Amino acid sequence: MKLVTFDRGRIGMVDGERVIDITDLAGAQPGAWPPVGMVRLIADWQARGPALRDALIRLDSRPLADVRLEAPVQWPNKIVAFPANYHAHIDEMKHGAGSGVISTYKASGQGFFLKANSSLSGPADDIVLPPLAGREIHHECELGMVIGKRGRGVTRADARDYVFGFTCLLDMVVRGKEERVMRKSFDTFCPTGPWITTADEIADFDNIEMRLFVNGEERQSASTRNLIVDIPEMIAMSSAVMTLEPGDIIASGTPAGVGPVEDGDVLEIVIDGVGAMTLQVRQGELGAHAVWDEAKAGLAV
Amino acid sequence: MKLVTFDRGRIGMVDGERVIDITDLAGAQPGAWPPVGMVRLIADWQARGPALRDALIRLDSRPLADVRLEAPVQWPNKIVAFPANYHAHIDEMKHGAGSGVISTYKASGQGFFLKANSSLSGPADDIVLPPLAGREIHHECELGMVIGKRGRGVTRADARDYVFGFTCLLDMVVRGKEERVMRKSFDTFCPTGPWITTADEIADFDNIEMRLFVNGEERQSASTRNLIVDIPEMIAMSSAVMTLEPGDIIASGTPAGVGPVEDGDVLEIVIDGVGAMTLQVRQGELGAHAVWDEAKAGLAV
Repeated sequence: MKLVTFDRGRIGMVDGERVIDITDLAGAQPGAWPPVGMVRLIADWQARGPALRDALIRLDSRPLADVRLEAPVQWPNKIVAFPANYHAHIDEMKHGAGSGVISTYKASGQGFFLKANSSLSGPADDIVLPPLAGREIHHECELGMVIGKRGRGVTRADARDYVFGFTCLLDMVVRGKEERVMRKSFDTFCPTGPWITTADEIADFDNIEMRLFVNGEERQSASTRNLIVDIPEMIAMSSAVMTLEPGDIIASGTPAGVGPVEDGDVLEIVIDGVGAMTLQVRQGELGAHAVWDEAKAGLAV
Repeated sequence: MKLVTFDRGRIGMVDGERVIDITDLAGAQPGAWPPVGMVRLIADWQARGPALRDALIRLDSRPLADVRLEAPVQWPNKIVAFPANYHAHIDEMKHGAGSGVISTYKASGQGFFLKANSSLSGPADDIVLPPLAGREIHHECELGMVIGKRGRGVTRADARDYVFGFTCLLDMVVRGKEERVMRKSFDTFCPTGPWITTADEIADFDNIEMRLFVNGEERQSASTRNLIVDIPEMIAMSSAVMTLEPGDIIASGTPAGVGPVEDGDVLEIVIDGVGAMTLQVRQGELGAHAVWDEAKAGLAV
């Protein structure tokens, strides 16, 4: 099943090239603030599931092209992200511009960080670059996992039960030495979508293939089988520390091939069995601040 | 005005030693999930304000001691935190156990990070320590600012208009080299409360005094006049990057005097004009994971 948020908080199920509006069945209130309709639906999924499946047959559909898709989850409890989770990406960052540093930094030993909820954007939204002179802003192609039920101290063995579904996710980042979280939390720096594909449609969590294209040229390609911290372990590690809530998003970390994006670029992310989305990059006006101007010491990139 | 969340999502106004239940006036639904009642009230504050002020006279009150206070804001868009925001604390971290590193790290040049919403706890909740052998877990006494309205690119001059109120906040942290966010996001690692004191009660944002006591002994003492990044600048910097939303929490960073806490300790945080709360520390069972076991290289503390 593929779930979308569209047209200012409506909720739908995708059926081929059409969408079925299940806003009322989901108990969601379009335009309500804060926008927690999808988070609530995920929490109630078991209870509402039968009525929703029935809706696939009973309710009218409309062309998907006629609606404006939004970030599927807009106000989760948190967005967890795993840096340095592919060996090949760690290698490229070690040898990156101006670095020269040998780093032992990897997700298995360093753990996770967070991205701001306010960085979430959807498949119809542009990626807006802040005007930071001399800074590179990189694309990172990632798999987004959506958590389906509350859990703390979840074991590897039980982890799969906590995955509600998957979505495409880009972890945009300003390179530099400042706090990683700040460099990754600009508005529109966490595009997600085009929908959540429920976990039952993904046979093997360790064999999900993803690719990222910039202006039609393939730049990143990876499979979840090459993750350092794999999907069950991401859930085990994050839930050791924090209670995971329905609707929480976990970003997998990016493979090799990251690179700068510029005004006018077009990014396409494709995750087999999950979905694909094409995003415009444009230069914005907001984001400058003295914090980006100071000379820095340190290891972060 | 002092606003509390209590008894599983009810909302109240504190009047001396009594509390007036304004749950219905606030349009909040006790027990609803996700718990966004206070966030919504803050967003609607201007519209609901007159009715709420009237309630102070009209509605019955009950003893504050008869209710169980909870984290005032439970599901914000984000919790922003400024590390290394007092010179004296930077100095103590430079010379901390096992460090010996000269760091140029400070908030004005490094920016902010995030804590997980799920780390929020309230004045009646214990601080629960994860069982991490050989690790110190430190108290950090901070001022919590609560944002009152949506804003991006807020200037220093306008920043005060975006502050809804203040609350006491402890930024608990496991010392080590792992991602700062992970070390600071354990459940109960962000106690807040006992209430939100609205900004109109604080005459001078640059002259707020706070103290932290461990088992009755003063360990931390500071004033917001000694912040490196002051309150208007915290709002300017964070809103340069991210849209701030009503209910967002910004933690000020901690002064000198941080230190380890242990099972059985009692922490008391006092912020003049804002509030005070006393918290029990106890050893918990959840939190261990291999990520805490590996040897680390790097600067973070």
